[in-house]
Parts: sequence; structure tokens; C-alpha cells
Amino acid sequence: MKLLVINPNISEDVTALIESEARRSASPGTSLVVRTAGHGVEYIETRFESLIAAGAVAEIIAEHTAGAGAATADPDGAQIDGVVVAAFGDPGMPALKELADVPVIGITEAALCAAALQGHRFSIIAISDRIRPWYLDCVERFGLGGRLASIRSINETLNAIGSVQQDFKETLLALSRQAVAEDGADVVILAGAPLAGLARELRGQIPVPVVDGISAGIRMAEAVVGLQSGPHRAGAFAPPPVKARKGLSENLDAALTAAQTASNAAAPS
Amino acid sequence: MKLLVINPNISEDVTALIESEARRSASPGTSLVVRTAGHGVEYIETRFESLIAAGAVAEIIAEHTAGAGAATADPDGAQIDGVVVAAFGDPGMPALKELADVPVIGITEAALCAAALQGHRFSIIAISDRIRPWYLDCVERFGLGGRLASIRSINETLNAIGSVQQDFKETLLALSRQAVAEDGADVVILAGAPLAGLARELRGQIPVPVVDGISAGIRMAEAVVGLQSGPHRAGAFAPPPVKARKGLSENLDAALTAAQTASNAAAPS
Amino acid sequence: MKLLVINPNISEDVTALIESEARRSASPGTSLVVRTAGHGVEYIETRFESLIAAGAVAEIIAEHTAGAGAATADPDGAQIDGVVVAAFGDPGMPALKELADVPVIGITEAALCAAALQGHRFSIIAISDRIRPWYLDCVERFGLGGRLASIRSINETLNAIGSVQQDFKETLLALSRQAVAEDGADVVILAGAPLAGLARELRGQIPVPVVDGISAGIRMAEAVVGLQSGPHRAGAFAPPPVKARKGLSENLDAALTAAQTASNAAAPS
Amino acid sequence: MKLLVINPNISEDVTALIESEARRSASPGTSLVVRTAGHGVEYIETRFESLIAAGAVAEIIAEHTAGAGAATADPDGAQIDGVVVAAFGDPGMPALKELADVPVIGITEAALCAAALQGHRFSIIAISDRIRPWYLDCVERFGLGGRLASIRSINETLNAIGSVQQDFKETLLALSRQAVAEDGADVVILAGAPLAGLARELRGQIPVPVVDGISAGIRMAEAVVGLQSGPHRAGAFAPPPVKARKGLSENLDAALTAAQTASNAAAPS
Amino acid sequence: MKLLVINPNISEDVTALIESEARRSASPGTSLVVRTAGHGVEYIETRFESLIAAGAVAEIIAEHTAGAGAATADPDGAQIDGVVVAAFGDPGMPALKELADVPVIGITEAALCAAALQGHRFSIIAISDRIRPWYLDCVERFGLGGRLASIRSINETLNAIGSVQQDFKETLLALSRQAVAEDGADVVILAGAPLAGLARELRGQIPVPVVDGISAGIRMAEAVVGLQSGPHRAGAFAPPPVKARKGLSENLDAALTAAQTASNAAAPS
Amino acid sequence: MKLLVINPNISEDVTALIESEARRSASPGTSLVVRTAGHGVEYIETRFESLIAAGAVAEIIAEHTAGAGAATADPDGAQIDGVVVAAFGDPGMPALKELADVPVIGITEAALCAAALQGHRFSIIAISDRIRPWYLDCVERFGLGGRLASIRSINETLNAIGSVQQDFKETLLALSRQAVAEDGADVVILAGAPLAGLARELRGQIPVPVVDGISAGIRMAEAVVGLQSGPHRAGAFAPPPVKARKGLSENLDAALTAAQTASNAAAPS
Repeated sequence: MKLLVINPNISEDVTALIESEARRSASPGTSLVVRTAGHGVEYIETRFESLIAAGAVAEIIAEHTAGAGAATADPDGAQIDGVVVAAFGDPGMPALKELADVPVIGITEAALCAAALQGHRFSIIAISDRIRPWYLDCVERFGLGGRLASIRSINETLNAIGSVQQDFKETLLALSRQAVAEDGADVVILAGAPLAGLARELRGQIPVPVVDGISAGIRMAEAVVGLQSGPHRAGAFAPPPVKARKGLSENLDAALTAAQTASNAAAPS
Repeated sequence: MKLLVINPNISEDVTALIESEARRSASPGTSLVVRTAGHGVEYIETRFESLIAAGAVAEIIAEHTAGAGAATADPDGAQIDGVVVAAFGDPGMPALKELADVPVIGITEAALCAAALQGHRFSIIAISDRIRPWYLDCVERFGLGGRLASIRSINETLNAIGSVQQDFKETLLALSRQAVAEDGADVVILAGAPLAGLARELRGQIPVPVVDGISAGIRMAEAVVGLQSGPHRAGAFAPPPVKARKGLSENLDAALTAAQTASNAAAPS
Repeated sequence: MKLLVINPNISEDVTALIESEARRSASPGTSLVVRTAGHGVEYIETRFESLIAAGAVAEIIAEHTAGAGAATADPDGAQIDGVVVAAFGDPGMPALKELADVPVIGITEAALCAAALQGHRFSIIAISDRIRPWYLDCVERFGLGGRLASIRSINETLNAIGSVQQDFKETLLALSRQAVAEDGADVVILAGAPLAGLARELRGQIPVPVVDGISAGIRMAEAVVGLQSGPHRAGAFAPPPVKARKGLSENLDAALTAAQTASNAAAPS
Repeated sequence: MKLLVINPNISEDVTALIESEARRSASPGTSLVVRTAGHGVEYIETRFESLIAAGAVAEIIAEHTAGAGAATADPDGAQIDGVVVAAFGDPGMPALKELADVPVIGITEAALCAAALQGHRFSIIAISDRIRPWYLDCVERFGLGGRLASIRSINETLNAIGSVQQDFKETLLALSRQAVAEDGADVVILAGAPLAGLARELRGQIPVPVVDGISAGIRMAEAVVGLQSGPHRAGAFAPPPVKARKGLSENLDAALTAAQTASNAAAPS
Repeated sequence: MKLLVINPNISEDVTALIESEARRSASPGTSLVVRTAGHGVEYIETRFESLIAAGAVAEIIAEHTAGAGAATADPDGAQIDGVVVAAFGDPGMPALKELADVPVIGITEAALCAAALQGHRFSIIAISDRIRPWYLDCVERFGLGGRLASIRSINETLNAIGSVQQDFKETLLALSRQAVAEDGADVVILAGAPLAGLARELRGQIPVPVVDGISAGIRMAEAVVGLQSGPHRAGAFAPPPVKARKGLSENLDAALTAAQTASNAAAPS
Repeated sequence: MKLLVINPNISEDVTALIESEARRSASPGTSLVVRTAGHGVEYIETRFESLIAAGAVAEIIAEHTAGAGAATADPDGAQIDGVVVAAFGDPGMPALKELADVPVIGITEAALCAAALQGHRFSIIAISDRIRPWYLDCVERFGLGGRLASIRSINETLNAIGSVQQDFKETLLALSRQAVAEDGADVVILAGAPLAGLARELRGQIPVPVVDGISAGIRMAEAVVGLQSGPHRAGAFAPPPVKARKGLSENLDAALTAAQTASNAAAPS
């Protein structure tokens, strides 16, 4: 199984964190193609930054599906079986699920599922106060707002996005414990790609299951890809209808055409 | 008062419909700058098409705010007092509200408010079946899902997007009446820029108030601009924090810088 | 455009505050008829007081519509184009919308729409602790409970209802700032007719848009009246069906008869 | 135990139906005082008619509590232990609970509780289509909207309100059975005072528990009165605060004064 | 009327508390059969303990209905008219309602109804922190989560379950008052059979109505039994369909057979 | 990785279906221990049948964890890494998660997550009408009720539970297609262990992704076990507190003791 893992932010050091944790989390038979957003911001904290990132992620997905007909292809040659969008808040979701014939999964929705299967109420620990409203939107839009115990966040200025988890380890641990003791969390989600891998380190120090977004993204993508549930040929996630368009990138244009072709080929006569 | 009205789709004939109805609806003192998306699709029916449109709308907003400091400027010289995003489904909302120091209002949220102030439950009449899930998302995300009586739609192939309202007038009238008689709608919203102006024609033939998205967008933008509620200098809609970014268009880059400058200038020392 | 603005409380000094802010807010072409409740209490803090006020408001609306046939008439001669019920909590809403052929809009629903169009989550600042449950009911009944960040209130005894905004300006400012900093409000609503006009004064001192109920009521009423959406001839807000009644005031009796006549005249044969 | 049972409508023949069923339902030790609204309409179908009725009910409650200090007194001399508001839709609720020191219970809320204790989802069978939006409001406002299977109603013109249950018995039976078979109702509520007593007749012909509003109102009032839970001396249902008022009826004025006196007497120093 | 009151816990001293309060609460014509769970734990604090208790309660209900055909019989000879499951959290609800042809009512659902009829928002005062998530589930499952002001609990170790209410009276009183003053509770529910009878003692010291679970269970069961709404012969609470089963206790097996026989006998041919 | 897969029903032929599909779905490194409920019914259609099944599942989990200290042991010697409860409707969930130190996952919650990650709205196709209310409870309790498009079911008598999927293949296919075309399902879940494996057969004939409960259960359990999120040592899913108990089976008793021992050992001093 080959997964395309996309960092929707432009930070190469966060991509490195993502890649490390993704490789640690992946099952033996899973290979990974890891990519960084071609444009955008250092890390996403707001709804608008997420919108920008969504466009960048779409370009990368399109690049890997543009020439593929029904299949989703890696430009390096091999077929992609699934996509992981590796920023908490799931930029572009669920819209991006229309763009490929394979599962496209955000790390937030993956983490929410991983948490919901291990307890009833969960808390999210985030790296900045500003990021919380967008995360809350994300949980509510996914439909699990009723199970959210709290979102707690660091309210200090970050030095560097690549070192957040080391700079604020004690703070993040304290926030996690408060979520359990004061907010009634049964599970804690350490949110955001900059925290990738921290859950491994903090387990045992937090008295409930701790979920890492990147790990959850990889594992849930493997699970869903493994189900081979079949593509969308009708309904809201089928490829967008054929119509006049202009000004899209070459990849996006090709990807939309490829999707429509695959969909039409599959349609019952 | 000067409003920037943006058609998030690439269809110039729909822009013409929008402009006509916008001019009919505007109050005497309101002037309009009407623009068409620079890239995208003919009309939006899916979540992904909406995502593409959101990017195109952001570019136009940025172009009008890029050099402005605290003020939002029209490239033609005059200051913009508000923005109307003129496609039902509100592509890019609410994220785009972060991008300008003036109110940015979608025609869906405007129509929902106009309906909610005139009755309790409302129905939306749409131009295609495929468009419904996205519209439903939009109503739920705005928070008024509990007041939605139904979304009814044309389930035939459209000939041309510019002539939908004439080609399907009888169907649209029948759908509106069914919404009242069978779904319990107190108000009917004729959704989508391609239907701009039709409400004027059908009033008296539908036994409840009928809301046109474009008219609602103009009138509600006038109302909100008139309130002079002040800008966002804190909270989730303040300009995004300063941080490394790359690959954005010149306008977007300038707009983000301008927003941050304005915001910092206003911050209490 | 002529708007009837009704103070549902008996306080003439609050009526004066309402009238001042309403005149400051109204567009050039709008004229106002301002009236004070004929019976009731000094200011409304409870569900029961609101019920009493609703009856008083109904009488005033009826007085202005009683002899009018399809038209809604001011006893002074001119036709009324819309009604603003100027107490936060919207006494009698949405029931009062049945009583007139023109839009009848409460300042709470107007303020909620004005806030919802300018951010995602909003807080309400109120003049007494006792008033909060009723306000909460009002937000939930309107359907926007999911977007309410908080209701904060003065918990001191008021000296005089007409001077609340001056007596407690610092407290109201502090509550507003706490709503932004601690509760996540994107917009602040200064609630209650006794606070009419205070938003103008506090803008710039609160780092998010600030909404005044009276201004919102006037501007939103202008917007909705301007839409000319048409009357209710079917559905839950059509005039009540003809049936035996007794003991109503002369005005109410006449208004109900007038409404039914207008409705029947319009009914398709 | 002495219960005051109020018909919020002016129809004496419906009062007779109410009284018959109330007497059949009451426990041995319960005595009833049955009253008809002094003003209002023949039967309530709309939110506005309900508002009018709420005022009429308030007058009757006040008349029975006006001279009573902490106690709630019947003008005939004996003390009232509880009040049943006997129109489906609960006009004036929950506001009227502020007005008396004894439980004031609507037949809808009573029927909803009786249904909710006997199954999970329930349907309401109503006497007119117009009445449904108001009933739906009532269920949602009580908080049990998530358990409502459906509201079904007679969509024919009624001959006389006093004979509805006999004129439409077969229709009502058919609607009840459809609610079970098609809507998933576990319990059926026959709604509206005009249907008082019909449940007794139809039991055995409907394959799930059938709840009569009047019976539920009496039984639930007996249960709650029997609990002797104590009065409201704080919170949202304590008597309204003392303040200037004018134009209220003598009874209302006296009732408010009495409530405040009782409340103050009980307040801890 | 004869009610079977079941303590789902194994503590005989709590059964004694339940029985005392149940006898104080019951109406003159009501006789009680009080039983203690045959297996399980001292008191229930978790979802799993509740599951165990549900099985024990099912056995007792079955024992009293096993030989009864359509009637529900007490092994001592007389017919049972209703069942009260006397542990807060309602173990086994609503599933247990399928097992008997008479009303089976949990004390939580009874207390929620008693509270909801006396105010709008209510708080629950509980004996341990661990118990709160299960109680919250229970309120949400019943559908009244929107009216819950708070759940407050003792966070100290209990000495003995039978003396909790005496050992922690001051704490419980303080928690109750905080619920009113800080959480906006209109009614306070003293939750849990170990607190049976305490509400009588604390009334007058808490400024809002106080509801005792056991009293509410008895009174509400009397009310519902008195309604004689009829049995479930269709829908989700009709006796389970006939099918192969094995390994059930003799009583359960007989009870299921009896229920099916009664149901079939009643079915229309 | 070793998973314990439990059929909560007594049907050995359904166990065979479960085992076949589970083995087809499991990843290479996963071994399975498949068990059938020791007592209960042929297949679960009601809330009460689910309660009985929950008890039977608890016994099997306990048997595999009773002697294990912190580890969860298979009586055959090897350690169990996770448990799959293989009946749709998730009998005993989430309570059973308290009983073991490894993830315990129901196939419904697994299928809901698998569906929610592949689309927005999903439908459930069920084998009997009676089963629907319990399934609906399950979806609502999990918190994803807002994303449920519909539950459709066979409304004919089943010949044999083991052959349902072959006897009704055409019906199930038709129901699935209706869910897509009429109810707006983006994903279809074929619910119930008796349908295990059918999704593989019907893919390509249903135009959206199709989820099999058993496959989803296995894959999601693998994913969650692989995350190694750590055990519950605090919060609502920590082992139940130590307290007096009686009458539990030897296995349950031992399992509770083992859980408490493990939990105490891990507690920080």
C-alpha cells in the first residue's frame, strides 16, 4: 500500500517531523510519499490560512492523479492508494475527497475517530490560542462536537514551529492532565503536525489514552484503504460534473478530466 | 457606500444577472463594483468547486485591499466599504472575513438572515440535485439547520446557466409551492446567482415571502456596513498572525501585510 | 419608508434612548414612529414580564393596522412599512409576525443576524443576572444557540433604568473585553434598549465588532422591508383563521379582521 | 389536593370535555376548580392565538393567587395546590410558572413526560394542519424534539370544535396507526383539549400506549404537587423583581405583589 | 396499585433508605414490593457497573412476570401494576421497558420529568466524581441534555454508602446552592438512592425546588400507571420477537415466553 | 497482533460468516480468536436482546482477561491485543471498554468511522424493521446522528439468519441504491453480522463506497491497537473502583480484580 502524505504548510522541518512519525506508525507493507505544500504559510492557525493551504494540497493531490484515468498515480511511477492530509484542522476537507478515486483522509478526522473508539469524551491540546476556533469548527463539522470535552492550548509565543514540542513539553503535559482532571476527557489528542511523535513520549505520564494526529492519520488511512469500499460514482463525492472551466493549473485541470473519465467509464449504460 | 460584488464563478452572463439585480436592489446611496472570478468553473455545484472558487474570490478581495493600510481600496481609487460574495453556498466563508477590514458577506448567509427574520422555517430552491449537499452544509455551518424546512431542486440537465431561470420558471414555481404546502416553509429562498431577479417575478404567485440571494446580499451588506460595528483586532477574525509565507500571489501577499499593519497600528500599546 | 418602533416597556426615558439611537441609525429615507407600551413594567427581566409586554406590543401593532385592509396604517395617516420591537428578548416573537402584513422584527433577532454576519461566535452583554435565562431562551429559540459564546451581565442593583449605561460603563466595557478574551466572542452585542447608543461610544475600546440592538433593529428592518419579499398568505405566519373570539380590545379585533380580509382577497380562487 | 384547571380557550363545550376527562382522571383525594378563559378565541391554532390565550390564563391564575401571600388561594376560599393549563401547546409556558408559588403545568409538557416515560419516540395527533408549527415549537422548546417521531393532523375543515373527536374518530385512529407503522412512534399523544377522553375510547385499537393530554395534565400535576419540592426563591422562576409597573389588571397587580411579599418573607436575612 | 421497587445494587442498607422514602412518598392506595439486586456491586458509579446491574434488575422483573400471561404477577400472588428501577442512572433503561406489560420507570427519568415540569434548567447533585459521566449519558440519552445546568459531585472518599447523606450533608447543601447561584439551576435533583429522603430535610435551605429521585420515581410511576395508556403490541417496545435462545435463567425464559404469548393473543387477526 | 472476535449472538452459522469475513479482512500479521456468546438469542433485534447479549460478551471478555494482571490473556496462552464485538448495534458499548486494558471496539462504531472518513452522510441497510430503533439509538449515542442519511431495512420474515444475505441479496441491493438516490447517502453500511462479506459481492453494483461491519471492525481494531495509545488509569473508562460485590461469575470477578490491580500498580504514588 502506498500513501501520499501531504504537509499543507510550507515548513520543511515540520515535514520532517511528520515523516518521522509517519514512518514509525506505518505498517510493514506501507510505503510513503511525503510532500510539502508548494505555497502557503509556516503553520496554519486561522480559517483563512487553512483556505490557502487547501488550495496547495489540491495541487499536490492533482499532480499525483492527473494522468491516471481511474487509477491514482504517483509521478514517480507507482500508484497511490490513499492520501493523508497532515495538518490538524483538515484544510480542504471534505471537499478534497471529490478529487481522487482513493481515500483522502485528514489527520483530524482520523484522530477524532481514533479517540471516539477509545473513550467517550476527548480533549484536544493545541499549540496556540488563535488556532482553537478553527479546530472547534472542524470537530463540529465532522459531527462529533457533542463528544468534545475541551480544547486547551499554549498561550505563549512560539519560538520556532519545529521545536514547539520540545520547548513546551511541560506545558503540553500539564494541559493534557488538566483536560483529564478538570474537563472530563477520556482520551487526549495532541493536535497539530508540529507535535508529531510527542504522544509516544508522553504516554504513561498522562492517565488516559493519548492520540497523535499523524499516527492516527496513517493508521486510519491504512484501515480505510484496506477496506476497499469502492469509489464514488454517484452522490456528493463523485467527481464534479463536466463543465466549462478556466485558469486552473495544468495538474488540476488534468486531474478533473481524469476523474470525469474514470467516472463515466464506470457508469452503467 | 461602495460595495464590491464578486461572482465566484467564471460565467460573464451570470455576472450580468447578478449586476442587474444588485443594481435594482441597492439603496440610492450605494455604488457597486462588480467583478467576475478570474479562474474556476462555470457554476459551482460541489464542495470542491466551491474550494476553487474561494481561492478566486480571495484574489479579488486582496486586489481591492492590498495597498490600503487600514482602509480597503478599490483599484479604481475609491475605498470599498463592504464585500458581497455572490454565489449561493458562500465559497470561502467565513474564512474570507479575516482578509478585509470591512464586512465580507455571502449571499447565503444574507438570505438565511432575511428568511429567518420573516418566518420560522424556510426552504431553499436550487438549480441542481448535486448542489444540495453543499447547500445543506452551508446552512448547518451557519447554525440555522434547525430552521431548514427543505432543499428542493431541479433534477433535469441545464441547457445554459444564464437561462436557467427562464428555462425552468414553471418548475421553480412548482418546487416553491411544494415547499410551502408539503414541507412547512414559511419563507422560500430562490438560491443561486443564476436565479438572480426571479423572486421579483414570482412574488404573488408563491403564498409566502420569497427571498432572492443577490438582493438579500446587497441589502444585508448595506445594513451591516451601516452599523459601523468596528473591525476585528482580536479573536478568530483578526488578521492572521505574521509568519513566514511563500508562493502567494502579489495581491494576497500585499493584502495580508496591509491587514497586519492596520491591526498592529490599532493595538493598544 | 416608515417604521413603527415600539418600546415594550413603560419607561419613557428608555423610549427616549431608543428614539435617539434609532434616529442616528436610520437611513436618510426612513421616518420613524416611536411608541411606548401602554401597560407593563419598567424594564423586562423575566419570561413573565416578557409575556405581559408582548400583549402591550400587540395592542400598539393592532392600533396601527386595524383599519387598513391589506395596508398597515399609522393612525396619523401614513402607511407603516415595518415594525421594530425594541426590547432585547423579543417579547411576543415570533407570534407578532402573524399580526401584520409588513415585517415585524425584534431587536434581538436583528442583533443576532448582524453579529452572525460579522463573525462566528458572539457574546451578549446584559444589564442584570436575572435577565440571562430569558435571553438564552431567545437565542436558542431563534436557532443560533450553537454560536453563542456567552452571556455576561451586571450583577449589581441598578439605580435607574435610564442611566444604566452611564452608571455602569466601565463594568460593561470590562464584561465585553472578558467575553472576547475568555469566552471566544468574535462579536459583542450590547443588549437591551437601556444600552441604546452605548456601542457607538465603546467602539475602538473593544477589539471586535460591537452591535447595538436598536441600531441593528432599524438597519435590519430597513433591509428586510427593502427586499419586498411579499406577505404570508399560507403557512404558519398567515393571518390566524377566522373563528369565534371574544373580549379582545377593539384594535386587536379590528386588526384580526383586517388581516383576514386582506388574506382572503389575495387568495387564489 | 385542589387543582385549578384552566381552559385557555373561550369554548364552554371544550371546557365541558376537559372537565369530564379531568374528573375521570383525578385521584380520589383530588378536587378540581375548572375555569374558562375570559377572553380569546374558540380554539388555538397559531402562535399569536396562543399569545392571546397566555394573557387570559395569567388573569385566571392571578385571580386565584392575588390575595394569598405565600399561599395560592381559590376565590371560593380554599387554597389551590397546583394549576393545569389545559390547552395543547402550553400557552404562556414556562413564563406562567413565575406567577404562582405552586406548580403550574401545561398539558403538553405533561403529555410529553408521560410519553417519554413509556417509550422512546412519540407522535402527536392534532386537529388541524395549521396547528402543527406551534406544536413543534412547543416540543422543541421543552427540549424533547429529538424524540418526536412525527406530528400528524386532520387536514379537513372542522364543523364544530366540541364534536371534533366524534366527527373525525376514524381519521384520528388512522393517523395514530400511521404514526406507529410509518413514523416509528412508540407512544401516541392525542393532542388538544377537544380530544379529551378520546384516548380511553381508542385504546386497544392502537397498538402502542396512547396518552390523553388532559389525563396526563391531571396525573402529572398530582405527582408534582405530591412531591412538595418547594417554591422558587431564586433563579429564573422566582417571582419577578419589584419595579414600577402600570396598567395591569387589579388581579395581576395583586398577584405580583403577593408573590414578591412571599418571596421576600422567605429570603434569608 | 402495586409497585415493584427494585434496588439495582446489592446494599441492603440502601434498600432500607429506598423503602423508607418510597413509603413516605407513596399515595394512600399504593402498595410496594421492595427488592434488592441478587448480584452486582455495592453502588453503581460506572457504565460497566450499570450494565451488570441491568442484568440483575431484569432477573427480578422477570421473576415477577414470568408466569403471568398478559398480567404481571408478584410471586407473592398479587398483580404488579408498575416497576420502579431505583438507582440513579437508570440501569437497563429503556431496554427493560420491553420486558413487562406494565410501565417500567427509572428514577432518573422520573426525576428529570419532575424537574422539567418545575423549571427550565436543572442541576444534578451526585455522590462521586466518577459517577458523573454515566449520569451525563443518562440525561443526554433521555433527550434533555439541553436543559442540564450542571452535574456537581462530592469529590471525597465515601465512608459507607448507607451514611453518605448524613456524612456529607453540608457538602451536598453547598453543592446545591452553587448549582443555583453559579450554574443557573432552576431545580436541583439530589441524585442517587443513597440520598433518598435528603430532599425533605434540605428543602427551605435551597432556594429552588428540590427533587428526590425515589420520591419522583414513586410519584411518576403512580401517575403513569394511573393513565392506563395500554401496552406495547407494536413498535420498538413490544415484546421481543420469538426466536431461538439459550442459557437464559428460568425466570427470564418464562418472562419472554409470557410476553410473547400476551402479545400474540392481543394481535389483530 | 491477536484480536478476540466475539459474536454476541448464539448462532454458530453467523459466527462462521463472521470468521470468514474477519479472516479475509485481517492484515497479514493479525491472528484471530473467534468466540460465540454462551447465552442469549439467535440474533439481536431489540434493546432488551442487546442487553442480554452485553452480559454474554462481558463473560467472554472477562474469561480472556481474568488472570492477566495488566495484560489481557487468551486462555489458550497468548495475550489478546484487542477485542471486536461483532454484532451491529454494539451491545454493551461503551461500558465494556472499562473491562479490559486493551481496545474493545464494536463493529457499529467501527463502521460509522469507516463511513465518516469516506463521505459525509451515510445510510445503514438492516435486516429487519424491528432492528431500526436500536440502530438509531446506537448512531445517536455515538454522536454521529447528524450524519445519518437513513436506515433502510428488509420488511419481510427471515427464513434463516445464516442465509439472509443470499435470500435477500436483490432486496439489499435495491435498498442500498435507494439510500443513494433518494436519501442522499455518500456511503452505504451493510449492517449486521449476518451480512458479513456481502459488501465484497455488491461493490461495483452500488455507486458509492460500501462498508461491511465485520471488515470495518477488524481493520479499525488493528488501527487502534497499532496506535498503542495507552490504557485508562483515570477518567470514566478506568477500571471500576474497588467495592463490595457479589454473585458475579468467577471470570468477571477475577477480571475486575485483575483490572484494579493493574490500575493500582500503574497509579503514580
